[in-house]
Amino acid sequence: MEYVEARFIGKKPKLNKPLLIEGLPGIGNVGKLAVEHLIDNVKAVKFAEIHSKDFPPQVFINTDGTIKLVNNEFFYWEAKKRNQRDLILLTGDYQGLSSQGQYELVEKILDISEEVGAKEMYTLGGYGLGHEIEEPKVLCATTDKNLVKQMKKFGAVFKKNEPGGGIVGASGLLLGLGKLRGFKGVCFMGETPGYLVDPKSAKAVLKIIMKITNIDINLSALEKKAREIESIAHQLKEMESMSSKEKSDELKYIG
Amino acid sequence: MEYVEARFIGKKPKLNKPLLIEGLPGIGNVGKLAVEHLIDNVKAVKFAEIHSKDFPPQVFINTDGTIKLVNNEFFYWEAKKRNQRDLILLTGDYQGLSSQGQYELVEKILDISEEVGAKEMYTLGGYGLGHEIEEPKVLCATTDKNLVKQMKKFGAVFKKNEPGGGIVGASGLLLGLGKLRGFKGVCFMGETPGYLVDPKSAKAVLKIIMKITNIDINLSALEKKAREIESIAHQLKEMESMSSKEKSDELKYIG
Amino acid sequence: MEYVEARFIGKKPKLNKPLLIEGLPGIGNVGKLAVEHLIDNVKAVKFAEIHSKDFPPQVFINTDGTIKLVNNEFFYWEAKKRNQRDLILLTGDYQGLSSQGQYELVEKILDISEEVGAKEMYTLGGYGLGHEIEEPKVLCATTDKNLVKQMKKFGAVFKKNEPGGGIVGASGLLLGLGKLRGFKGVCFMGETPGYLVDPKSAKAVLKIIMKITNIDINLSALEKKAREIESIAHQLKEMESMSSKEKSDELKYIG
Amino acid sequence: MEYVEARFIGKKPKLNKPLLIEGLPGIGNVGKLAVEHLIDNVKAVKFAEIHSKDFPPQVFINTDGTIKLVNNEFFYWEAKKRNQRDLILLTGDYQGLSSQGQYELVEKILDISEEVGAKEMYTLGGYGLGHEIEEPKVLCATTDKNLVKQMKKFGAVFKKNEPGGGIVGASGLLLGLGKLRGFKGVCFMGETPGYLVDPKSAKAVLKIIMKITNIDINLSALEKKAREIESIAHQLKEMESMSSKEKSDELKYIG
Repeated sequence: MEYVEARFIGKKPKLNKPLLIEGLPGIGNVGKLAVEHLIDNVKAVKFAEIHSKDFPPQVFINTDGTIKLVNNEFFYWEAKKRNQRDLILLTGDYQGLSSQGQYELVEKILDISEEVGAKEMYTLGGYGLGHEIEEPKVLCATTDKNLVKQMKKFGAVFKKNEPGGGIVGASGLLLGLGKLRGFKGVCFMGETPGYLVDPKSAKAVLKIIMKITNIDINLSALEKKAREIESIAHQLKEMESMSSKEKSDELKYIG
Repeated sequence: MEYVEARFIGKKPKLNKPLLIEGLPGIGNVGKLAVEHLIDNVKAVKFAEIHSKDFPPQVFINTDGTIKLVNNEFFYWEAKKRNQRDLILLTGDYQGLSSQGQYELVEKILDISEEVGAKEMYTLGGYGLGHEIEEPKVLCATTDKNLVKQMKKFGAVFKKNEPGGGIVGASGLLLGLGKLRGFKGVCFMGETPGYLVDPKSAKAVLKIIMKITNIDINLSALEKKAREIESIAHQLKEMESMSSKEKSDELKYIG
Repeated sequence: MEYVEARFIGKKPKLNKPLLIEGLPGIGNVGKLAVEHLIDNVKAVKFAEIHSKDFPPQVFINTDGTIKLVNNEFFYWEAKKRNQRDLILLTGDYQGLSSQGQYELVEKILDISEEVGAKEMYTLGGYGLGHEIEEPKVLCATTDKNLVKQMKKFGAVFKKNEPGGGIVGASGLLLGLGKLRGFKGVCFMGETPGYLVDPKSAKAVLKIIMKITNIDINLSALEKKAREIESIAHQLKEMESMSSKEKSDELKYIG
Repeated sequence: MEYVEARFIGKKPKLNKPLLIEGLPGIGNVGKLAVEHLIDNVKAVKFAEIHSKDFPPQVFINTDGTIKLVNNEFFYWEAKKRNQRDLILLTGDYQGLSSQGQYELVEKILDISEEVGAKEMYTLGGYGLGHEIEEPKVLCATTDKNLVKQMKKFGAVFKKNEPGGGIVGASGLLLGLGKLRGFKGVCFMGETPGYLVDPKSAKAVLKIIMKITNIDINLSALEKKAREIESIAHQLKEMESMSSKEKSDELKYIG
């Protein structure tokens, strides 16, 4: 096995200039949630998987008791209408653990994407704010200047000097290494507190993807998950405020 | 020397579709204890060893003052009865230190196994519970759905969503990478508190291996070790409870 | 992409035995500040960039919303007068993250330098003192004994056994690996407290480079930055002394 | 440059079955002190050096202001009497930083040793006790059983199960990997508290090397260093006992 290895499952799909949409685990799992939801919704078909020696040496256990080696997976979806584009969708269990592993994983993702004809991409991730937020905005960064304007029309926000530290991880690196190969692309970053998985932020990102791709996506499953997470967050906060109240009560006794 | 290097000791054994049974160091050292006991009991013969640049740069000192480079070792055993199968047994001083080292070690184990004709495997490990346990159960996960049923007959337990985090390390990776090469296999995980080496859990795992392989194994040495460990665990607990009693006594003086 | 990869941008420049001047991020960012100032001042032209799998998997976001993969960049400048030399200037976002990454990055820098004819170099960095300093001196270390004398004439200081721990990072390694290839070179280390970026130390280093290269550099931008940093340092100190005064006030109340 | 690279300085020496004696940095720097003292005393001649991408990216600064890339160095010495053997001596600034780096460094040391005809070795190190010791003993471990007996005659001690954790680092790995290539060898470990460099332990090791090699070594420089270190250790202890006395005085005031 190579350091990073891709294998097609069945025949290589024949696609017409497909768009790559990537969502791997990250802050708030925003990108992964969004792409997994998209895959389920459009019933995309798995066609390739990537293994890497820089993923953890780990298998997951399926509900039927069989194991599954951790990986990244490619799916495709063929356009149904004239105003749509073929899609390839990438998600997975992990990003690379080391810098080198990240670079090699992203190179392999670009290789497979080129092999099925993709030269444009949307990479999805979260932008951790460290505080709660009512309505998450979606920031963007692009390979080409003219794309910034287009993305604003779709509702993405461009804030000067944000994120200040740039983009770390596969979503940024795909644009960076992709640009060197002539890919055009946009990274969308849904604002998120970053403490828990964030379906609300994933929904905000998907709304923009819906406009770009002209695909109707039923977001109710994401909305349900979002309510569950909000309820968990609420409980956590109560527990915290109770324990800090106890502490301040204790402190009063000292005085 | 390659990154991971195997060398045969003497002639390559001629075996008839042997079963691979693996037990490397891990939680409670369950797998290693089980396979070492099996090797001793059936008087298996060493036929190959693996060195790796991802093992620690370390030698052990034998009782006669000579050194031994840390390694993994393969043994074989030839079936004595018609209802038995030839075995190859793998144990060792270490698993790989890094992700890459783990993947490459497991690939090499699979290479050697294929070279002597093995395409089926049982990998043995521990499942750390973090609390004490009266009668350790043995969980299992498999490469193929139909194996789950078979293993239940031998007394293995299948719990949905356990272990929740999947299997990390060589025992899981052997199934994961092996499956890609057409191996069939089962990982047995003996429940263990995980604090100390756990011969009791190793015994539970070996009982299942006895049924699968139709080999009679004398478990008295493991049982003796188990009683020793229980006595050590008991002493440790007493020391702990005494020291915490002292602490609470001290605290009373403050009041 | 190779582990470390260089690509020329446009045509390879034709230079006459250029001097390499390197300044990558480090203590007080002294070297990077100095070389960036030099590049701006002489309007040097970018001609090559280096990417490495040992840089972080990161892109920065430009002010126009486009991304830029982290890299190291080469610039050149052609001599205008008879007493000047052609220059190649190297700066960048990062040094290598690991030992191996550092060695491979430096080898690549030397490769590119040789390709455009350079066999002499000045590497710029900071020498962290851990305390404030009125007038930063510039220490030096060289590949050849006779260079020490020459550098003293230009105002560099040579202190026996300083820096005691030698030079860690690209500035030292360029001399070390360069010497094995027949490069001659000097490392200049501007004294710096090392807490903040230090334009004052960068200015001290550039003053020596001006004498060596016979290039007039307008240092006013650096001086302005230095005043800003001094003002920030001043504020930080006041905040610190206030908070420690508060603490000692609190302590008094206890007594 | 290769991951680990050796270069001969001048002509390769013609030696008659030389003995390799290795002493790299480690606990108490025992091995390095011993081999450096031996090199100085017999006026051994440097003939090769090793660089590695797994050494730190660092240069040291010589007293004349020139730099020296960190390395390992080989010296040779030709026998003067009939009862002596030619020697090659290895010391250096660092061992490899990572496991892989250690394995590759040791392989390269064995390559060079074989190239000049060595198939026997003595590796020198320290055995950290964590407490002070009056007369350091010298433990040994060997590649071959019969060597244990021989070494006892020279005054080395063999203690069953010591060091319990085996030998970690180049001294052990040279025996381990060397044995696979047919080298015979002994590792001597001078007992040492392990807190400071330990010339006394180095002297104990060299006394055995003197008997084995029939070379007279003037140990006075090591003895002088040992007295200096003892004086430093004494001062450190006084400072410590004073500060703990102060603390207990303070504590009395509370009561």
